[in-house]
Amino acid sequence: MINQLVEKIKKTNAPIVVGLDPTLKLIPKTIQQKAFAEYGANLKGVGEAIWEYNKGIVDAVYDLIPAVKPQIAMYEQFGLEGLTAYVRTIEYCKQKGLVVIGDIKRGDIGSTSAAYAIGHLGSVEIEGRKFRGFEEDFVTVNPYLGTDGVKPFVDVCREERKGIFVLVKTSNPSSGEFQDRMIDNRPLYEWVGEKVNEWGADCMGDSYSYVGAVVGATYPEMGRVLRKVMPKAYILVPGYGAQGGKGKDLVPFFNQDGLGAIVNSSRGIIAAYQQEAYASYGEENYAEAARAAVIDMREDIAQALGR
Amino acid sequence: MINQLVEKIKKTNAPIVVGLDPTLKLIPKTIQQKAFAEYGANLKGVGEAIWEYNKGIVDAVYDLIPAVKPQIAMYEQFGLEGLTAYVRTIEYCKQKGLVVIGDIKRGDIGSTSAAYAIGHLGSVEIEGRKFRGFEEDFVTVNPYLGTDGVKPFVDVCREERKGIFVLVKTSNPSSGEFQDRMIDNRPLYEWVGEKVNEWGADCMGDSYSYVGAVVGATYPEMGRVLRKVMPKAYILVPGYGAQGGKGKDLVPFFNQDGLGAIVNSSRGIIAAYQQEAYASYGEENYAEAARAAVIDMREDIAQALGR
Repeated sequence: MINQLVEKIKKTNAPIVVGLDPTLKLIPKTIQQKAFAEYGANLKGVGEAIWEYNKGIVDAVYDLIPAVKPQIAMYEQFGLEGLTAYVRTIEYCKQKGLVVIGDIKRGDIGSTSAAYAIGHLGSVEIEGRKFRGFEEDFVTVNPYLGTDGVKPFVDVCREERKGIFVLVKTSNPSSGEFQDRMIDNRPLYEWVGEKVNEWGADCMGDSYSYVGAVVGATYPEMGRVLRKVMPKAYILVPGYGAQGGKGKDLVPFFNQDGLGAIVNSSRGIIAAYQQEAYASYGEENYAEAARAAVIDMREDIAQALGR
Repeated sequence: MINQLVEKIKKTNAPIVVGLDPTLKLIPKTIQQKAFAEYGANLKGVGEAIWEYNKGIVDAVYDLIPAVKPQIAMYEQFGLEGLTAYVRTIEYCKQKGLVVIGDIKRGDIGSTSAAYAIGHLGSVEIEGRKFRGFEEDFVTVNPYLGTDGVKPFVDVCREERKGIFVLVKTSNPSSGEFQDRMIDNRPLYEWVGEKVNEWGADCMGDSYSYVGAVVGATYPEMGRVLRKVMPKAYILVPGYGAQGGKGKDLVPFFNQDGLGAIVNSSRGIIAAYQQEAYASYGEENYAEAARAAVIDMREDIAQALGR
């Protein structure tokens, strides 16, 4: 799947992943009202509104981008109905040929991580037949529990040819509280980066490993160091746009081959219509606004990379 | 909710939480076959089997214990049908008067943690009405992202009078890989413990904080230190039983008042019938075997604490 992701990035010339992170504040009123009229102003109605909203965005941008990243929390907050929309969104994105990165940030002791891994990337066996709970191509993983909390994901990735992105240095303001603490003269995030290398060493795709890393666009200098620490790890870079990261901040995350990083934007794309620059599209044309924002983001990155 | 948990622990004289962590290997064949006959040998059938299995255990032990801890991964692995069983289990346990600790180990950047927090402990508002996605009383939280990843949970706890247990030192073999690394002469887990104190300081129950901690029974010496670092944090102690922790290992986790810790056992209780000591119950009496195992665990802890 890492090979497929790299191929799609080359083909679209867009190292971009669109974060499908719906909240009620972002979904146009007309979509909400239609869903509520049909299913009720309740969790089911919201699930339907999320699905319609996502479908509009995916239809408008799928030819421009390699991948999407639904943040499961935004669905999980609406309970089972929200998670139903998550499942439908994944299925639809895959039909459209998109790589799906489930931003689930799971991680637990070995046997429990194994359950998450087979639930999201693999399959469970019931009376000799295989069933898939969720069907992401990649998921994000939290490293706090160490190797035995991450390995079960790696094992499933090897079997299924799927991948993970391990949290190394996150984009949020207080990520440094623990991640930047110095241990033997190196910050914790570098030690985690070293482990990412190790975990990914024996499951390589053509040029990058099945085991990637998450490093926030908001910390470009740390990105520069981590790029060298983990030369074979694809870096998923959140924090561009709404969180403050800019095009020029992204340069250190890429390798000399112009590959090695994929940049996420969520609100900046899916709610572009709420920004001044795209306000002229109007709420009803939120999907076209998202398309315009993707094109602008692609240009911003290309320019920063000097292409 | 922390007050309610403490009261229930005193009343039952059992600082025990039963981990409702179903897997197909643990569920008696007769329950599986009945569910598969009715709903099919598929995810829906498994969801039904999990629910029946859990219900049997809860019915057999609810009067002996203060709380249960369903591990969401064990449900999530079976997709939406598994999570439906999770929701049903929580609802049923609350009807039975049990405190429910959702072992979800979530944690993300601020806005995303807020979504998890309202989804599991709080409510979402839809057209002026409140709806609850999941309805745990407590959840477990991963601290890797720092304060702004944890605070949204604390805020919801304060509002809802619910609680969290933050991962400090986990029970698994490789937990030390990052958690034990020395930072300014103290291991990372102590620094996390200090933060637990800080996060919990302004949301105190009568004697303990809404913000508790997870510290594995497999590391009693670290438990001794952490007990002092976080005097007001209730400690959720996994790792007893199947993972290797014994009664005497639990002593350091308790305060002088005999409170301050609640010990989890999962397989050791719910699949007691598979152990030699309880094999005479037979598979069909798995619930009675679970009850016997709870009584033995209560005795083991009481003896260790010298009661």
